[in-house]
Amino acid sequence: MTTAKGIATRQRIVEAAAAEIRERGTLATTLDDVCRRSGTGKSQMFHYFPEGREQLLLAVTEFEARHVFDDQQPYLDDLVSRAAWEQWRDVIVDTCRRQGPHCPLGVLIADVGRYSPAAQAVTTQLIRRWQDAVRTGIEATQAAGEADPALDADRTAAAVITAIQGGVSVLLSTGSVDHLEAVLSLCLDHLLGPVGQ
Amino acid sequence: MTTAKGIATRQRIVEAAAAEIRERGTLATTLDDVCRRSGTGKSQMFHYFPEGREQLLLAVTEFEARHVFDDQQPYLDDLVSRAAWEQWRDVIVDTCRRQGPHCPLGVLIADVGRYSPAAQAVTTQLIRRWQDAVRTGIEATQAAGEADPALDADRTAAAVITAIQGGVSVLLSTGSVDHLEAVLSLCLDHLLGPVGQ
Repeated sequence: MTTAKGIATRQRIVEAAAAEIRERGTLATTLDDVCRRSGTGKSQMFHYFPEGREQLLLAVTEFEARHVFDDQQPYLDDLVSRAAWEQWRDVIVDTCRRQGPHCPLGVLIADVGRYSPAAQAVTTQLIRRWQDAVRTGIEATQAAGEADPALDADRTAAAVITAIQGGVSVLLSTGSVDHLEAVLSLCLDHLLGPVGQ
Repeated sequence: MTTAKGIATRQRIVEAAAAEIRERGTLATTLDDVCRRSGTGKSQMFHYFPEGREQLLLAVTEFEARHVFDDQQPYLDDLVSRAAWEQWRDVIVDTCRRQGPHCPLGVLIADVGRYSPAAQAVTTQLIRRWQDAVRTGIEATQAAGEADPALDADRTAAAVITAIQGGVSVLLSTGSVDHLEAVLSLCLDHLLGPVGQ
């Protein structure tokens, strides 16, 4: 049923929607805009997204989330030393600074992520996947003797990704990345001990 | 110019808008709804909020923020011991758990706080006021010998309130308060040292 051509068409629709949303915001983007930009008809659109606008927005959320994961590589998959954690932190802070209040995933999750069970399922799964990657890093860092072995790795990972979301949330409200840097540094100091120890 | 009656009328409008937004959401609330609910005419509305809807929404944001500050008392103004910090944390977590994804301030800031300079000014000032209150607590706790004196109090306060915003953000997306509790507990452990020391 999903041919290579079908996958390509669906992907073209998702990328067109992502581009529209990046330019104009979630609320201003209509299915007609996305059809026009992607060169697809309404019937094709409803073939790939039978539930309509929200289903498309969730596919765009997953698409933007892949970018966010990719932006964190290769650091996210190699969190084992203080140097690696600090590089990862700096990549996150720099990416957020560059995007300013226009973080595509942050905007999307804020706009679509709150109300429906489908949206909650997607964001919950993204959070879980990110938390698992960070937890793996914490466990590796503990095994390498560079992090306090008494810390609960999963709960600490939950704290770290929540801290980042808070930093993004403050960034969206104020335009400044300082709070993101402060909270993420506090988490790393707690995980790794103060610099120089 | 601002008589007692004028202040009362303005307050009635703000409270009516806050109630509408709590019931129906920011986007669905119109000035007509607020006029009807508060029993005021359009001309009165524009007397108190000459710049219209956004100005009213920012007044509601400040109104809801006062509730959020009040909810944290008397703990927020008395952060000096581990017991006080833990009570404060528990009040925040319990309030958020009770409100679930319907935290009125979180919703408002997400809906109005991102785009205009006026909105950024209001949210920046709210964040600053909250951070100052937490910083005062950190300094008092350091002076009492219960927190690491080497920590930068203002930067640690920035981290703590950012952590809370992250927890609220995850709560809005997933409906769970676990991440809020994890990140706030990590911050307190970092500030106060592990439990039992």
